[in-house]
Amino acid sequence: MARQTDAFDLMLPPRDADVPAYRWLYDALRAAILEGRLRPGARLPGTRDLARQADLSRGTIVSAFEQLHAEGYVEGSVGSGTYVSKVLPDDLLKAARVKPRTVERGGTVRVSAYATRLPPAPAFDARKPRAFRTDLPALDLFPTTLWTQVAAKRLRRLSMNLLLGTEPLGYPPLRTAIADYLTASRGVKCDAGQIAVVSGTPDALDLVSRLLLDRGDRVCMEDPGYQGAVRVFESVGAKVHAAPLDEQGMKVPRVRDARLLYVTPAHQFPLGMTMTLARRLELLEWARTSGALLFEDDYDSEYRYSGRPVPSLQGLDSAGRVLFSGTFNKVLFPSLRIAYLVVPPELVDRFAAALAVTRRHAPLLDQAVLCDFITEGHFGRHLRRMRQIYAERLSVLMESARGLLEVSDVEAGLQTAAWLPAGFEAESFASAAAARGVEVTPLSRHSRRALPREGVHLGFAAVDAREIRRGMRELAMVLAR
Amino acid sequence: MARQTDAFDLMLPPRDADVPAYRWLYDALRAAILEGRLRPGARLPGTRDLARQADLSRGTIVSAFEQLHAEGYVEGSVGSGTYVSKVLPDDLLKAARVKPRTVERGGTVRVSAYATRLPPAPAFDARKPRAFRTDLPALDLFPTTLWTQVAAKRLRRLSMNLLLGTEPLGYPPLRTAIADYLTASRGVKCDAGQIAVVSGTPDALDLVSRLLLDRGDRVCMEDPGYQGAVRVFESVGAKVHAAPLDEQGMKVPRVRDARLLYVTPAHQFPLGMTMTLARRLELLEWARTSGALLFEDDYDSEYRYSGRPVPSLQGLDSAGRVLFSGTFNKVLFPSLRIAYLVVPPELVDRFAAALAVTRRHAPLLDQAVLCDFITEGHFGRHLRRMRQIYAERLSVLMESARGLLEVSDVEAGLQTAAWLPAGFEAESFASAAAARGVEVTPLSRHSRRALPREGVHLGFAAVDAREIRRGMRELAMVLAR
Repeated sequence: MARQTDAFDLMLPPRDADVPAYRWLYDALRAAILEGRLRPGARLPGTRDLARQADLSRGTIVSAFEQLHAEGYVEGSVGSGTYVSKVLPDDLLKAARVKPRTVERGGTVRVSAYATRLPPAPAFDARKPRAFRTDLPALDLFPTTLWTQVAAKRLRRLSMNLLLGTEPLGYPPLRTAIADYLTASRGVKCDAGQIAVVSGTPDALDLVSRLLLDRGDRVCMEDPGYQGAVRVFESVGAKVHAAPLDEQGMKVPRVRDARLLYVTPAHQFPLGMTMTLARRLELLEWARTSGALLFEDDYDSEYRYSGRPVPSLQGLDSAGRVLFSGTFNKVLFPSLRIAYLVVPPELVDRFAAALAVTRRHAPLLDQAVLCDFITEGHFGRHLRRMRQIYAERLSVLMESARGLLEVSDVEAGLQTAAWLPAGFEAESFASAAAARGVEVTPLSRHSRRALPREGVHLGFAAVDAREIRRGMRELAMVLAR
Repeated sequence: MARQTDAFDLMLPPRDADVPAYRWLYDALRAAILEGRLRPGARLPGTRDLARQADLSRGTIVSAFEQLHAEGYVEGSVGSGTYVSKVLPDDLLKAARVKPRTVERGGTVRVSAYATRLPPAPAFDARKPRAFRTDLPALDLFPTTLWTQVAAKRLRRLSMNLLLGTEPLGYPPLRTAIADYLTASRGVKCDAGQIAVVSGTPDALDLVSRLLLDRGDRVCMEDPGYQGAVRVFESVGAKVHAAPLDEQGMKVPRVRDARLLYVTPAHQFPLGMTMTLARRLELLEWARTSGALLFEDDYDSEYRYSGRPVPSLQGLDSAGRVLFSGTFNKVLFPSLRIAYLVVPPELVDRFAAALAVTRRHAPLLDQAVLCDFITEGHFGRHLRRMRQIYAERLSVLMESARGLLEVSDVEAGLQTAAWLPAGFEAESFASAAAARGVEVTPLSRHSRRALPREGVHLGFAAVDAREIRRGMRELAMVLAR
């Protein structure tokens, strides 16, 4: 084993009182790695030792380590030792040049209440997908050649109209294509005028939050649930009420004073169940009587492997109280940044007003290329092809997990939950898995309440059968210890 | 002259109390046009008559007419008669199908204070550029073939990294290219880590407003000035203090309690003067002592025709108090939706946090294509080529206006101001010009205070010399009346 680096060997620079402690430590370690003072393969000091030596909380140290980890500077994990990465890709060395100049003076700028409520941006995770990355399609199978052909064809007949711009809610032909698709495939009742083209689900949530919530308003949220939504709601100053789940999905909240309820009925994030029709109708009735709106996040139900599709909440609603959101970032590729929101007719002008004042409209050429990709039939073919591949990957996951983990039998989507055998704790399981090059996320990270059982979130779409099997073999080793 | 349509011929439908009056009238007239009840060439009722007959304010009628006008349904102008357009392009008939379903019930959704402060979205103006359209480059001269080649080349070598995503502030190589360009050409002192890639100037303003302003905070603003900025500031609940201009540019505000000051020093919007160095230093001193930040909107100074470039406020600032913003939407094409903000080092993490929580990052392929376009030298060549063309167009404008209008001798940008001869009023001048197919915007629309003289805003970049001369001949006819 490599000698553990002593914190004093690192010559940590003096700490600037204006820089958050985790950031100072991150910068210091990163500089040490990039300047070669910490060599590839060197073991970093333990978090406890470092906390004591640098007089910082252990949470601060863990935050700094996690950021270095996410950016690829270090490997291993907090539990089992952290090492400087053996291979520092060129990207990192390049990225080093893209850091802002050091702040020359103290923090003198007063920021808004909104700014103070924002959590720090997580480091962008540029690592190649591994087992069991969640929220990611199979990028290696994306038909880039076909996409390039569609884009090139559209660009060659670029009209002045396409250079000029479009309506705030988006390119009308794309909105028509989306409305047609949602009507035919997802049981959504809408026309093109109700479609707002946005950047992603977080963007849809942010728009909805700005337009519907004031500080102190209450939002109901599934628990466990999508913490990205919680971050948006809390950033605008809303109070989040976490409603528990049962086997039918989110329970109807007891509170009656909520302005908005966030729910993932098609494929609950992260547990994976499909909400029953009975529960859907109860939720709609609750919304009708309490005056709340529902945000239906249909983030990955393009892929259904078994079971009968249940009509969307939006399609069941006759009172115009459901905002339905979906995304192309998870079925095509994440860097596309095109998603949509189906807005109740009564609110369409408000959404147009917000988009017009802030960003005019989403980039138009991307919208036009995506529109061609859909209307020329490529999108439907891509979905059919990937559905088969993902169904196979899901069955490989289920099969290889047999006897090891109790994997939830999901009907749809790109990921599922797995329960650990008694005696295992998800955080240390995840740390040990990470040390073996396997990514699993403890379900507790998506939860506010203590969960009845320890479990992890597993993606099965991003990597192939071979990598799924490798991942499961590594998990078996962790479980065998 | 066509017979004036009587309001009662139109069978205006009963008014729904939940729909704003201008919207009801717009819908009714539009339906009448699309259904053929108002035939091409038919004259609409006068605004005064219609106001009396429908029991609405004249402002309401004008709003509805302006929206129909902007969308191409009607021609002419409020002053000189409004006619149904002779040619209704297919686009309009198609757009008619993209309107949301009628609201079936009353407005039952309570919206946020932010939503109530937003002005309604203006209709998207899809008309072909005419003399003297402002804020628009020469789209017919944009090198679309070259852009297509650059895009196709980048798409053909699409890597998994480009499909995956990037940092919240944007694609690092593009941010490096922007920082290099700004350092070399605009006198901005920054490194790539300070660049945030956003959708446009309004988006930059919105981000800055959310992160720096709370409701009730004061913002100083040039008057006359860019009303798009005022709309953003007012939407977040800020109080706008309008500071007057003199020949040196914006005067230093008397107030000491502002959090932010918005200014266009390179080419004042809309009057066109370049702020003197002395005034720049005074503004920076004011910012330093009052604790305000400066938002420097450098929206179109890529094109400088004469005079010596003055260093940017950002470059003169040593205290990290300037947010510098610029855009590619005006030098390349408006539907691109890529602009940038240079953030003081102290605030970089706040901007990254806001982008991460709301939209992850700007669409990545667009950023990569633009990056190639810049780093392969095409951007610089495009600027040099267009600078020469726009300089010619400006001189055609100056020459053809001689003896007619007093045109400000601008040193930079895509537009200028022109002062009317005594006795002319800008609104009726603009109406009469519009009736002759010429677009001029009264400067009073960009102003809160009464202006000392009546003037209009003229763009000279979007159309060629022939169209500029045609436009000026038409203005001469209006002035000769």
